Amino acid sequence: MQPIHELETPSVLIDLDRMERNIAAMQTRCDDAGVKFRPHIKTHKIPQIAKMQLEAGAVGIACQKVSEAQVFAEAGIHDLMIPYNVVGAAKTRKLADLAYYTRLIASLDSEHTLKGYSAAAQNMEIVLRVVIELATEMQRAGASVSDALRLAEIIDQDDHLHFGGLLIYPSMPAARPVLQEALDGLHRRGIGVDIVSGGGIGASHHLKDVPELTEIRVGTYVFNDWTTVDNGYATLDECAMTVRSTVVSAPTYNRVILDCGSKTLSSEVHNGAYGFIMEYPQARIYKLNEEHAYVDISACDEKRPEIGEIVQVVPVHTCVVTNLHDTLYGVRGDQVESTFAVAARGKVW
Amino acid sequence: MQPIHELETPSVLIDLDRMERNIAAMQTRCDDAGVKFRPHIKTHKIPQIAKMQLEAGAVGIACQKVSEAQVFAEAGIHDLMIPYNVVGAAKTRKLADLAYYTRLIASLDSEHTLKGYSAAAQNMEIVLRVVIELATEMQRAGASVSDALRLAEIIDQDDHLHFGGLLIYPSMPAARPVLQEALDGLHRRGIGVDIVSGGGIGASHHLKDVPELTEIRVGTYVFNDWTTVDNGYATLDECAMTVRSTVVSAPTYNRVILDCGSKTLSSEVHNGAYGFIMEYPQARIYKLNEEHAYVDISACDEKRPEIGEIVQVVPVHTCVVTNLHDTLYGVRGDQVESTFAVAARGKVW
Repeated sequence: MQPIHELETPSVLIDLDRMERNIAAMQTRCDDAGVKFRPHIKTHKIPQIAKMQLEAGAVGIACQKVSEAQVFAEAGIHDLMIPYNVVGAAKTRKLADLAYYTRLIASLDSEHTLKGYSAAAQNMEIVLRVVIELATEMQRAGASVSDALRLAEIIDQDDHLHFGGLLIYPSMPAARPVLQEALDGLHRRGIGVDIVSGGGIGASHHLKDVPELTEIRVGTYVFNDWTTVDNGYATLDECAMTVRSTVVSAPTYNRVILDCGSKTLSSEVHNGAYGFIMEYPQARIYKLNEEHAYVDISACDEKRPEIGEIVQVVPVHTCVVTNLHDTLYGVRGDQVESTFAVAARGKVW
Repeated sequence: MQPIHELETPSVLIDLDRMERNIAAMQTRCDDAGVKFRPHIKTHKIPQIAKMQLEAGAVGIACQKVSEAQVFAEAGIHDLMIPYNVVGAAKTRKLADLAYYTRLIASLDSEHTLKGYSAAAQNMEIVLRVVIELATEMQRAGASVSDALRLAEIIDQDDHLHFGGLLIYPSMPAARPVLQEALDGLHRRGIGVDIVSGGGIGASHHLKDVPELTEIRVGTYVFNDWTTVDNGYATLDECAMTVRSTVVSAPTYNRVILDCGSKTLSSEVHNGAYGFIMEYPQARIYKLNEEHAYVDISACDEKRPEIGEIVQVVPVHTCVVTNLHDTLYGVRGDQVESTFAVAARGKVW
């Protein structure tokens, strides 16, 4: 145990009480809705935290990339979903290798990806479980319903693939008609559906409005951030991640500079702010350089941040902050209780 | 040696021919202007590359944080400048420790920072060389001229500090009046000036317009990026860094998805673009999620990117890309010639 005040700045702190409450609350929310919970580990990239989520009742985890999944599989977590098109022979070989010794669910939205999975599964002499990603109003990846039904028929005929069901992101109520149309089409074709996997912290508040879902993937809830708070999906008291930072310059009466720049907080911005300072709610972080945060303190009352003072910043987007750091410090009270190595940091393959 | 095509995607490639030309050209630019060159290593964070810069004629390096400087000092580079306020007793102790066995120049813009340096230097029984950062039109950190002159007098009287001169960023011609006023004030007080250190890739094109400068710090030039190209400070042929990426989805006729998201390219955006695709100049990366790049290909001619295809993306801001990756791959022709460990990645203290 080490007192927090001995940590250098900037350091990323995780309030363990808050994180534990967040883990319990999301599991309860899913249990109440009768939906299985599969936390997305992109937010923390730390096997110990994934194990806490599983301990609380999660059925498995979601990883966005194969190299991320490898880290968690090596840590002993063996129910994995990769809700991402894995493309390229070297990568599908690694995917099939993972599927050989874990319970893995891959996903796809095209025949190109399907063929890659089939070849890799055949080569590894396994049957790979795959789900089809449906397009949503987000307009990212995902197949149309007609393409999805065509792909499901191909999968159904493929000896090395097992059709596992459907995947959508985000699974907001607006996505329900598409989901219903796809499920109806699959039913008419006599193709069974094991899983309907939704995702998103917003969607987790609407689980009962999308009864087709069998499970849901959410990442951010474990720490929360300024965006989830400002969107009404969490309160400030539920923000477990803060960045401990020092005021290093006060060049004018209305501006101070913190030592947390874009290499610490990332460059993500939400409604003009790059982070929220817990001690100075009226202050606004209006710009970042790599190691400088520019803070407008003109709206602060008499008490204003001074050079040398240490403040705690709630980041705009917790997942990309984790990815910038080697270590997150789990704190309780005024002590550092856990030093979490960010084991899957930088795993973009 | 490994062929490039065996690298997974996304991977960050450094074209060694281009990097070597960039290193030589900037040194020549500085030599021609009679200004010493001190590369800022924040762009690459790799000691081997810093040594190439020194080999080409640089007088030393600049590091933004103490923990970064430690990595380079341990690699044998002993002329270091930290153009950043180092605040807090633990950190100034590390700074003084570094100054004990290297030729280090610290910087400050306030009496608070000055006192911290003086105490740490006294404790280490050294004389610490410090420069004063002047405020510029950038409105970041930096002292006003009158504050700078007051600080210089205090430094001049301090047995443990040596007044080394002035620091500005960026050192564009617009900053010249402030520089002249400060130099004049120092002259009137009989305080000698060893160094006038400027900075910025834009400023490197105007060295002869700011003859007060004795040296300049530039980082980005070593790799360049889409922002330096779009600002007219480099050509596409001078971009040494590209991110090798795969098309993983083509959900509509006018949209494809690449596997390089904000955890690979950072979230930095320049004029609405998150990167420039070398093979498809008409395409536009208009949005990123953590592992997805959304590409609008509606302006592309007949040839359009297809699923499985590999492309090279010039990032918007090279310095923050380096900071996301453990390894940069130095390539020449179709071979990987060097595997650079990003030794100072994540060093934000």
